[in-house]
Amino acid sequence: MDVSLGTVFVSEFLGTGLLLLMGLGVAMNLQLVRTYGGNGTTLMGAFGWGLGVYCAIFIAGRSGAHINPAVTIGKIFEGSGEFAPGIAITVASTLVYLSAQLLGAFVGSLLAWFVYRQHFDATDDPDVRLKSMVTYPAIRKHSHNFLVEVIATFVLVWVILSQSSTPSGLGPLAVGLVVIGIGVTLGGNTNWSLNPARDLSARVAHAIVPMRNRGSNDWGYWWPPVVGPLVGGALAGLAAAAW
Amino acid sequence: MDVSLGTVFVSEFLGTGLLLLMGLGVAMNLQLVRTYGGNGTTLMGAFGWGLGVYCAIFIAGRSGAHINPAVTIGKIFEGSGEFAPGIAITVASTLVYLSAQLLGAFVGSLLAWFVYRQHFDATDDPDVRLKSMVTYPAIRKHSHNFLVEVIATFVLVWVILSQSSTPSGLGPLAVGLVVIGIGVTLGGNTNWSLNPARDLSARVAHAIVPMRNRGSNDWGYWWPPVVGPLVGGALAGLAAAAW
Amino acid sequence: MDVSLGTVFVSEFLGTGLLLLMGLGVAMNLQLVRTYGGNGTTLMGAFGWGLGVYCAIFIAGRSGAHINPAVTIGKIFEGSGEFAPGIAITVASTLVYLSAQLLGAFVGSLLAWFVYRQHFDATDDPDVRLKSMVTYPAIRKHSHNFLVEVIATFVLVWVILSQSSTPSGLGPLAVGLVVIGIGVTLGGNTNWSLNPARDLSARVAHAIVPMRNRGSNDWGYWWPPVVGPLVGGALAGLAAAAW
Amino acid sequence: MDVSLGTVFVSEFLGTGLLLLMGLGVAMNLQLVRTYGGNGTTLMGAFGWGLGVYCAIFIAGRSGAHINPAVTIGKIFEGSGEFAPGIAITVASTLVYLSAQLLGAFVGSLLAWFVYRQHFDATDDPDVRLKSMVTYPAIRKHSHNFLVEVIATFVLVWVILSQSSTPSGLGPLAVGLVVIGIGVTLGGNTNWSLNPARDLSARVAHAIVPMRNRGSNDWGYWWPPVVGPLVGGALAGLAAAAW
Repeated sequence: MDVSLGTVFVSEFLGTGLLLLMGLGVAMNLQLVRTYGGNGTTLMGAFGWGLGVYCAIFIAGRSGAHINPAVTIGKIFEGSGEFAPGIAITVASTLVYLSAQLLGAFVGSLLAWFVYRQHFDATDDPDVRLKSMVTYPAIRKHSHNFLVEVIATFVLVWVILSQSSTPSGLGPLAVGLVVIGIGVTLGGNTNWSLNPARDLSARVAHAIVPMRNRGSNDWGYWWPPVVGPLVGGALAGLAAAAW
Repeated sequence: MDVSLGTVFVSEFLGTGLLLLMGLGVAMNLQLVRTYGGNGTTLMGAFGWGLGVYCAIFIAGRSGAHINPAVTIGKIFEGSGEFAPGIAITVASTLVYLSAQLLGAFVGSLLAWFVYRQHFDATDDPDVRLKSMVTYPAIRKHSHNFLVEVIATFVLVWVILSQSSTPSGLGPLAVGLVVIGIGVTLGGNTNWSLNPARDLSARVAHAIVPMRNRGSNDWGYWWPPVVGPLVGGALAGLAAAAW
Repeated sequence: MDVSLGTVFVSEFLGTGLLLLMGLGVAMNLQLVRTYGGNGTTLMGAFGWGLGVYCAIFIAGRSGAHINPAVTIGKIFEGSGEFAPGIAITVASTLVYLSAQLLGAFVGSLLAWFVYRQHFDATDDPDVRLKSMVTYPAIRKHSHNFLVEVIATFVLVWVILSQSSTPSGLGPLAVGLVVIGIGVTLGGNTNWSLNPARDLSARVAHAIVPMRNRGSNDWGYWWPPVVGPLVGGALAGLAAAAW
Repeated sequence: MDVSLGTVFVSEFLGTGLLLLMGLGVAMNLQLVRTYGGNGTTLMGAFGWGLGVYCAIFIAGRSGAHINPAVTIGKIFEGSGEFAPGIAITVASTLVYLSAQLLGAFVGSLLAWFVYRQHFDATDDPDVRLKSMVTYPAIRKHSHNFLVEVIATFVLVWVILSQSSTPSGLGPLAVGLVVIGIGVTLGGNTNWSLNPARDLSARVAHAIVPMRNRGSNDWGYWWPPVVGPLVGGALAGLAAAAW
């Protein structure tokens, strides 16, 4: 059964939107002042992102639930010819996936900001507000941070692509658990982007949402969390094709 | 096979009662003085509520395990015509679901209070005792807190309604994981009601259980955690019907 | 296929032994000095006990993996006539279950003590050593602590007995998750015994393992964590029969 | 269908490599300075290792996903005659498993070091850097630490070997959960090696990666985390054969 590109667009838009609403939600809950989640740790952050992926997959199933340009790129390099059953890999379908992901992530970022807008108002430090939306390196060296994102996203996409050949009754949770695992293990340096849409769209959202005394958008760091996952996803597609 | 409304009542009463016993249990364990759970964080609270839902679904399976008026309203707006296999949506069946949920939640709240009554006696601050039973906004602005409950419950009910069309071997855990995910991601502002019966029945229970030096019931905040979930559930039903 | 009582004995002995080795292991890891787990919280304790149950069920499957006298009593009151497929409920088989559970729990307690014996030696406070082995009420009032164990064990056994009539692909994890859920929600007052063998056998073990400057065994509290779970299990069997 | 030894080598190499990348990743994230995971606890460490195993099993399925010499030894002592479907137990296949595991663990250790190299540079205390790579006894007494590793690995391998005879829809997660359970319950004394390749290869890696002011490699402790798991795995194989 063929799936229309319109269906793909809506599916990826909704799924990536839900992912960012929940993922940025836990980041804001952990970092902004006067929330209930301020006592949480990295494990809670990983559960929030992982369960955000889990929930989003139920919504985005019709398009194969990529909800991440790195997965879409990985599928291209894997060479199976299809993004999902009934969806051929073409220039047009690729652009539909990527644009829906970026736009969905942007709208999801706005929604997350809306949920926590009182806490943005209450948080004086502009750096904290920025870090609750975008990834930020624990120790800054862009070339190294880039390579960390390459490695972490490589693991993410490689395991996801390998899951389809290993039986498991977990369904959408199977992917969510990979995200939790990578967050706690390989996320300590860059705070795990793993997803170009997650970081880029949230950075644009940070630049334009109403915010008193807005600080830097740290545009100089735009590329490690965007290009790193794309490279990692492409390498994972090659790895999945080879093994 | 038709399910009698008497069976529906008992099923929802028992399920919602168990949910409140466990859910308020973790809230009290985290907040009241001299418990073993006082060292816990928001992640533990989310696990307690999520696993409470998980356990309750095993008990309330005969009525489709709504255990939440927002799910019942969502089912109506979804337009499938049935609350669960063999249970037609009528005015009578709707009233049976809602009354059983409210009454079950009330009895479950009393039981949770009973389990932790020594700790209520040991907790001097009446605000802490209140917050261990009802949701309380981290930053109070009723119109905004209402909208946060709309959004969070929309996500909850939409994903639950979407799960029936996505294969997963998790059964009752599938719903419990959504609750854990929403608790840690979207619960930082209102402490996540998501369920009108959860908050309203517990607020009534707080007003009448034996308690020295009882503080305010905060009745002014009764409606955001009640009306918000109802609106969110209705919108989720429409979303599930459309997508 | 009939299962011999010898097989039942070995199965319950091994399963309950593994449960106590792991369950007391996490309790000791959290409480004794100079362990790696001293930074943990109640959520970690609940995971330790729940995953101990999970592991033990793989070992004790041949006898239906009761590994808890409260489950055995619950099965009797449920009135199905069988403890597990091929194992009739008789006086003899009941005694085999209970004796294997008590003896297994005792040997498991000794093993856990052995694993952490260096940390027992390093822990000066005899109360901490006691509390790392037996349950201890956060606020002592034996009649109330007893009722809390009745309620918590009722939930445990009722949900377990109900799981067999609700489809789930989780297998042994399904029971482990109930234990995690009850630990974090209803365990704040008594530190959750839920299992007569867990507390009684560990208390005997505490009385006889080599220990410098041994403190009280708190024998006055022997009965709430033993009789409470038996009563709760019996009531759960009746509930499962009725609903 | 026979599996070639070349396939076995690649499978175990990749799986064990991914396990060490993720497992050491969480250890470094928790312990080195200026990471995002420094607020984590033992529960997060256990999740990191457990989910590392979970991910690795998807990659190493073709060889049965031992990814641990203790499992390989356990399979030999279990006496089933096959390491996995289509892979006979011979001297040659045993050597392929063990060498692939050791080499994979070594490369995975190097990759983990690379991900966190900035944090190694920022961590002044050489003991912390060592402990982020190898296991280190909380209280040192090699003979006792050895016995703890024997017991903990016995449980690990016995439960894993027993899982194949108990139905569960969890697939790779079933093993990951055992690792999480053992980490929090039996890991408080030795920080859980459970896997000779995990400790030995990481210790070699610590000795040779670029590191300013390198401290001791603690070679005196090389054998408890290596020989202990081998003995425990062998005993578990015998136990699985007997029960």
